[in-house]
Amino acid sequence: MDRPLQRHACEVAFGDTDASGWMHFPNVFRYVEAAEHVFLRSHGLELYDFDQGGWPRAHVECDYKKPLRAGDRLEVRLALEKLGGSSLHWIFEIWKADELAASGKMVTVRVDAHGKPRPIEDSLREILTQ
Amino acid sequence: MDRPLQRHACEVAFGDTDASGWMHFPNVFRYVEAAEHVFLRSHGLELYDFDQGGWPRAHVECDYKKPLRAGDRLEVRLALEKLGGSSLHWIFEIWKADELAASGKMVTVRVDAHGKPRPIEDSLREILTQ
Amino acid sequence: MDRPLQRHACEVAFGDTDASGWMHFPNVFRYVEAAEHVFLRSHGLELYDFDQGGWPRAHVECDYKKPLRAGDRLEVRLALEKLGGSSLHWIFEIWKADELAASGKMVTVRVDAHGKPRPIEDSLREILTQ
Amino acid sequence: MDRPLQRHACEVAFGDTDASGWMHFPNVFRYVEAAEHVFLRSHGLELYDFDQGGWPRAHVECDYKKPLRAGDRLEVRLALEKLGGSSLHWIFEIWKADELAASGKMVTVRVDAHGKPRPIEDSLREILTQ
Repeated sequence: MDRPLQRHACEVAFGDTDASGWMHFPNVFRYVEAAEHVFLRSHGLELYDFDQGGWPRAHVECDYKKPLRAGDRLEVRLALEKLGGSSLHWIFEIWKADELAASGKMVTVRVDAHGKPRPIEDSLREILTQ
Repeated sequence: MDRPLQRHACEVAFGDTDASGWMHFPNVFRYVEAAEHVFLRSHGLELYDFDQGGWPRAHVECDYKKPLRAGDRLEVRLALEKLGGSSLHWIFEIWKADELAASGKMVTVRVDAHGKPRPIEDSLREILTQ
Repeated sequence: MDRPLQRHACEVAFGDTDASGWMHFPNVFRYVEAAEHVFLRSHGLELYDFDQGGWPRAHVECDYKKPLRAGDRLEVRLALEKLGGSSLHWIFEIWKADELAASGKMVTVRVDAHGKPRPIEDSLREILTQ
Repeated sequence: MDRPLQRHACEVAFGDTDASGWMHFPNVFRYVEAAEHVFLRSHGLELYDFDQGGWPRAHVECDYKKPLRAGDRLEVRLALEKLGGSSLHWIFEIWKADELAASGKMVTVRVDAHGKPRPIEDSLREILTQ
């Protein structure tokens, strides 16, 4: 990933592991979402609120490359692959020290509080297309 | 528990365990909530909706007596310890075959969609005081 | 999906929703995993145990088509797209009445208790290639 | 709480809310556990590992006082109410700015990797009784 729009440092919570000893696989998206949330909030946007609406996911995918365990220190990196009229096509990487532990994509759609697609805010569009 | 108002059979999900191999402890309340939800819905009530409001928890407690593992078949039993004007004082037991695996309490408050306490529905009160 | 290997009926738990009112997106995989677990257990296999090892995920993806809300009754359908030496390439669909609410893929790898890939059991292979 | 042994700053994750818009109530224990984990790790102990064993919970309770929403910045405070031979009786408070949002207790038992109670490490006992 060349120039991440967001880097987010975090640590794997014990409650996100399962009986295999590794992170329960869907929880990887909790960490991606945390990074996305930091990004959006730094630009005055929430993941969801009654005024602004939200960002439901249209598609997600993840390739799991290394086991993640409780207490592992991670860095999530987010970049934009494509910007649609109402959609953001994110790509993400999850690094554990110098190892790529997981990577994937997440397509989100900008919707109003009724769940209808709406154009992405100009202020955000400007930031994303710089 | 003498006469449970609700019995709910369920199975411990793999995703509810943690790296110790046992159920991650807060998840016990997911199973209690599932039983509560079955009870409320059987009387036409939801855990939350915009019209009826919801049932936020004022207090919970649990004693853990036996380890719970993925795939364990459980029965959750719910009874009412006390009925207030706007509150339900539930007691619960979680049985794994003939062993009591956990037990506890959950106090819920009837609120409207703005989070303000409101009287418990007469229809529900009648059922609970029979 | 032509001939699902497994159909699994379930209901969206309140605890799996988020503040948008819809299911928190990663939780869709909890329901897929529940169906997978039913399938594996019906053939004497666990998602993970110290003797048999487990089935870590190498890849997952999901397309979200319809909002899912607490209490929605779902049917998860699982079929096999491809069978490798140590891997299963599942495809899944999640139906809400007669609407396809989500669909996707999940690639799992058969590993021993040390996390090393091992051949899929002959007994399972026979079932999967009938 | 007079002299917390641990203070832990954190933020409510969107994925920890539910359709009521507030934090799904069992998740409060995820934040308490995060603070406990920071404390234990700062003294060379893990929540669970094969060598040291773990800290299963014997009892938890929580009083919910204020709604918690996604993005709320919290401080978790942990103190020790009682120290047994194999058990720690924690009390916790969760503060949201200058408001006490939740408080409660958590009794954990020191066990070996087989789940049998064992004496608490002298090194930890010294720290806890200073």
